[in-house]
Amino acid sequence: MRISIAFMLVLCCLGAAAQSTDSTRIKKIVDEVMSRSRAYENLRYLCKKVGPRLSGSPQAEQAVQATAKMLKEAGADTVYLQPCMVPHWVRGAKEQGKVFLDKNQSFDLHLAALGNSVGTGAKGVTAEVVEVTSFAELNELGEAGVKGKIVFFNFAMNPTYINTFRAYGESGAARRRGASQAAKFGAVGVMVRSLASNPDDYPHTGGMQYNDSFPKIPAVAISTNDADRLSIELTTHESVKAFFKTNCATLPDVPSFNVVGEIRGTELPNEIITVGGHLDSWDLGEGANDDGSGCVQSIEVLRALKATGLLPKRTVRAVMFMDEENRGSGGDKYFDLAKAGQERHIFALESDAGGFSPRGFGFTANDAVMDKLMAWKPLFYPYGVYEFRRGGGGSDIDALKELGTVLAGLSPDGQRYFDIHHAASDVFENVSRRELHLGAANMAALVWLVSEYGL
Amino acid sequence: MRISIAFMLVLCCLGAAAQSTDSTRIKKIVDEVMSRSRAYENLRYLCKKVGPRLSGSPQAEQAVQATAKMLKEAGADTVYLQPCMVPHWVRGAKEQGKVFLDKNQSFDLHLAALGNSVGTGAKGVTAEVVEVTSFAELNELGEAGVKGKIVFFNFAMNPTYINTFRAYGESGAARRRGASQAAKFGAVGVMVRSLASNPDDYPHTGGMQYNDSFPKIPAVAISTNDADRLSIELTTHESVKAFFKTNCATLPDVPSFNVVGEIRGTELPNEIITVGGHLDSWDLGEGANDDGSGCVQSIEVLRALKATGLLPKRTVRAVMFMDEENRGSGGDKYFDLAKAGQERHIFALESDAGGFSPRGFGFTANDAVMDKLMAWKPLFYPYGVYEFRRGGGGSDIDALKELGTVLAGLSPDGQRYFDIHHAASDVFENVSRRELHLGAANMAALVWLVSEYGL
Repeated sequence: MRISIAFMLVLCCLGAAAQSTDSTRIKKIVDEVMSRSRAYENLRYLCKKVGPRLSGSPQAEQAVQATAKMLKEAGADTVYLQPCMVPHWVRGAKEQGKVFLDKNQSFDLHLAALGNSVGTGAKGVTAEVVEVTSFAELNELGEAGVKGKIVFFNFAMNPTYINTFRAYGESGAARRRGASQAAKFGAVGVMVRSLASNPDDYPHTGGMQYNDSFPKIPAVAISTNDADRLSIELTTHESVKAFFKTNCATLPDVPSFNVVGEIRGTELPNEIITVGGHLDSWDLGEGANDDGSGCVQSIEVLRALKATGLLPKRTVRAVMFMDEENRGSGGDKYFDLAKAGQERHIFALESDAGGFSPRGFGFTANDAVMDKLMAWKPLFYPYGVYEFRRGGGGSDIDALKELGTVLAGLSPDGQRYFDIHHAASDVFENVSRRELHLGAANMAALVWLVSEYGL
Repeated sequence: MRISIAFMLVLCCLGAAAQSTDSTRIKKIVDEVMSRSRAYENLRYLCKKVGPRLSGSPQAEQAVQATAKMLKEAGADTVYLQPCMVPHWVRGAKEQGKVFLDKNQSFDLHLAALGNSVGTGAKGVTAEVVEVTSFAELNELGEAGVKGKIVFFNFAMNPTYINTFRAYGESGAARRRGASQAAKFGAVGVMVRSLASNPDDYPHTGGMQYNDSFPKIPAVAISTNDADRLSIELTTHESVKAFFKTNCATLPDVPSFNVVGEIRGTELPNEIITVGGHLDSWDLGEGANDDGSGCVQSIEVLRALKATGLLPKRTVRAVMFMDEENRGSGGDKYFDLAKAGQERHIFALESDAGGFSPRGFGFTANDAVMDKLMAWKPLFYPYGVYEFRRGGGGSDIDALKELGTVLAGLSPDGQRYFDIHHAASDVFENVSRRELHLGAANMAALVWLVSEYGL
């Protein structure tokens, strides 16, 4: 009994000592990032010198070159590109739109074509507007209520969800598949309320998919202010018509790249840890929060490990994934290469929820790994991260689950994300230097822990 | 034994039921605020229609009238003003400043007079610059190194402190009392590095006090970018001169007011709960985060209690304190009246750390009360508040401690606060609607709990 207690005490002390050493090292990493991070200046470059980086665009190509250079400057041992074919949707000339009320009254719409949607042609679309606030309402209207009309999907984000991503997920169905649902009943176009948390004048674009069983009809996002006004006008007017014209088109796929920078593990180089963001962005803003932030944070993880001399025992890869927004071809390619090369991917972390102040990490892991991760949680508390929750990853890394990889996603504060998401307001000025860096610091700390102890 | 266990089970169930009812009611409050808060629009009014509200200014007077109206609209039973005399410092015409390097090189300074400082007179101050990074350095220089010169206090905020207020507290001594420290050794003026977390071009003003034992010399804040440049120039030039001219003056005190709105308690109206922010602000921006936010959040607490029908058993007062920034005369007056009236102030909560996403509350309370508060903490977790820590209040309410009042302060995320604090960038556009409302929602929930159960 005594020996057993003594033994337990020794174990406890060893545990405490390890935690203490870990906390010292993590402080070193965090101090390095908060004092000398390059993430903010790299983001400035991506936003202001490169600009929006729509998959297939010349700017996306420039971003490949720019981040490869940043990875080298960060101290990566190796920097290389992974070729992949990406979609090439183009917006064309700026869209126009108008709502016509009776008695020659009208107002202009703040609108933007949805990504991957078809253009209207030169004449645009003009038709009566019918509003729905759910797919059930749409189905109830059916062909009789919808045929020949423009369907206005007014799915407002639920303001009472503190997790704004939950509201985005629920209301986002209209943007993602509303066009085909409406086309099924003979609609000639759709206008979707922007997925924004607040009243504003920005159209918030984003990806949509057609169901090949139905005609492909044009689809636009309109600002939340316009949606609110339109909804009111529809209650007070017998008939409201709208016109919109979009000039978008899908061109043939073009070759592009994921950008990868590595620090080779000192002891177990074949065990791979991925940390990444996506390099492409929508075209309306600068892709600052979505997802320039995740890219420059991932580069910073490498820089911080190098600069502190806390070299990882396992290989750490910072990956800039191409084409997250349209088809996910970069993420697919990364998975295919990992699988074909029989690489051992133990952990993958994505930052794709904005460069805001970090609050937690979400994990997709089994119980044993989750227990191990939870034991690390207190190490992050001094740096604003207090929540390790189940469920997390990112669309660029989720496929790695098939290889047994533990997935993780950074969870920053989400209150401002849908003010800027996919809109012209997603610009460098809307990223806070300290918030961005604090996110990178926590990411670097987590990556270092996994590189040191495995999972 | 069995009876005792059964009894404990009953107690447990009652406890759980109370928590469950509380969580339902708190959700009702939070949903109300997140869906229909007036705080953001009230803040827009304060910032855009009233503008900066320096103590003693006409705008401060307008803000008194405006918030009294807002309190009535929020549903306060009673709205009244508490007269107090406030200081009246005026900036005068915009300041000018320049640094002269050798060979006729020079650069302009982004600068602003510190609040309460004396003006330079028409000729301004021109003198050689000597830099110090601590008071120890200043003392070491002494009269020999300082006399006739401009002392440049380059006290950078420590970027590794995740709690930015800690960095502000440490580096802030130069702004608060640097002038007299330098005047003691014969300096003719001081330039203080702005208390900003990041490199920027804004001078960040703020209050300073003279020590009457020494001559009153002019004092300005210069931007962090200018401070960094000046520091570098000082290492590469044998002698660097600077010129600055300020036009500020302290006029006689003027009458002003705290603005108070009350909902009278339904059961214990003599037990008073105060929730407040300060109405005055510095003059360079719009006082959006400091502290228009705290004012409109406090008004929203009343509105939410009224709108949900969760009427407080104890009296809840929303207080807009006047003159927090200069002399604290509003807070003093509030305390004096409370004491003279033998009012029973059980709890006072201030929001004066910006309208950012809430993370916690700090409390000044004894152990028993702290235990009670800690038991409520889980109720706030769904709304982003995870930290109840010891130590908290606000400069307008701290005096109430003498009356046995439990003090509390809202702790929002602090990473962005010192980007805008006391600078021209503290404008409405730098407040997030959802973040502001989420802070108000948590404040309302806490105030409701105290109003329901006491402390």
